[in-house]
Amino acid sequence: MKSSAFKVPVENRYLEDYEPGSVHEFGTIPVEEKDIIEFARRFDPQIFHTAPKAAEGTIYGGLIASGWHTASLMMRLFVDHYLSGIASLGSPGVDELRWEKPVRPGDTLSLRVTVVETKRSRSKPDRGVLISFIEVINQNDHVVMSMKAVNMLLCRQTS
Amino acid sequence: MKSSAFKVPVENRYLEDYEPGSVHEFGTIPVEEKDIIEFARRFDPQIFHTAPKAAEGTIYGGLIASGWHTASLMMRLFVDHYLSGIASLGSPGVDELRWEKPVRPGDTLSLRVTVVETKRSRSKPDRGVLISFIEVINQNDHVVMSMKAVNMLLCRQTS
Repeated sequence: MKSSAFKVPVENRYLEDYEPGSVHEFGTIPVEEKDIIEFARRFDPQIFHTAPKAAEGTIYGGLIASGWHTASLMMRLFVDHYLSGIASLGSPGVDELRWEKPVRPGDTLSLRVTVVETKRSRSKPDRGVLISFIEVINQNDHVVMSMKAVNMLLCRQTS
Repeated sequence: MKSSAFKVPVENRYLEDYEPGSVHEFGTIPVEEKDIIEFARRFDPQIFHTAPKAAEGTIYGGLIASGWHTASLMMRLFVDHYLSGIASLGSPGVDELRWEKPVRPGDTLSLRVTVVETKRSRSKPDRGVLISFIEVINQNDHVVMSMKAVNMLLCRQTS
């Protein structure tokens, strides 16, 4: 798959700048053991996320990141590199979130985002919906997480 | 809707203890402004999540929590009160995650979880899948987030 380039930088994009079918690759973000444990102690205290030694005896054979931690790291890359800093109006939700493979200490994650579709709102023509397919990829080129994101964005042409 | 009781405490539940159709309500967890900002600065730095003053000028009229923060707070309640501490084997993903309403500083969240279905694995009869419908509810009884969770759990009867 070939990565496409946006014509407009992330802080100045509107709905029209997301071209259906285009594929965007960016990152990276490192995953450290202390961050896995800190996140999990706060939000997802299961032993395979919080206790390196005990995690060795689980089906994962060692510590893995909470899926919500992976999702949150994904969001950071998504906001820094893809989602408009000026036109983003939030999101009504996501579909088909899949944790495909464990994320482990020392992994480095990047994103591949495909623009699936853009739809202008009929009732509010100054905005519309951006549908993106997001893949989180590790340093071995394995997809560790994927999901379909829905984002509301302002349009450059407001009518 | 009436809340059901588990017969077995959370640290000792197996797949058989989740009765399809039963509804479980528990919580609560407070949402503070400083936590909203801290989470968002790290994972979702959009102004309606990080900057109280600037957020007043957005469609939300004030600071709101990142949806991933809400999901992470949900997970903490889910792990503390619902998901087995002994039989949980992780999750392949979630479906139909919806951020129904904004979560704001000062809100207090609780969970309502409905057991949708349990399915024993044919290939690995010591385990199976638990499907749950999760609703995150605020202090005004509004559903702020919902999703369908899939969890893998060990069975008490291993054959």
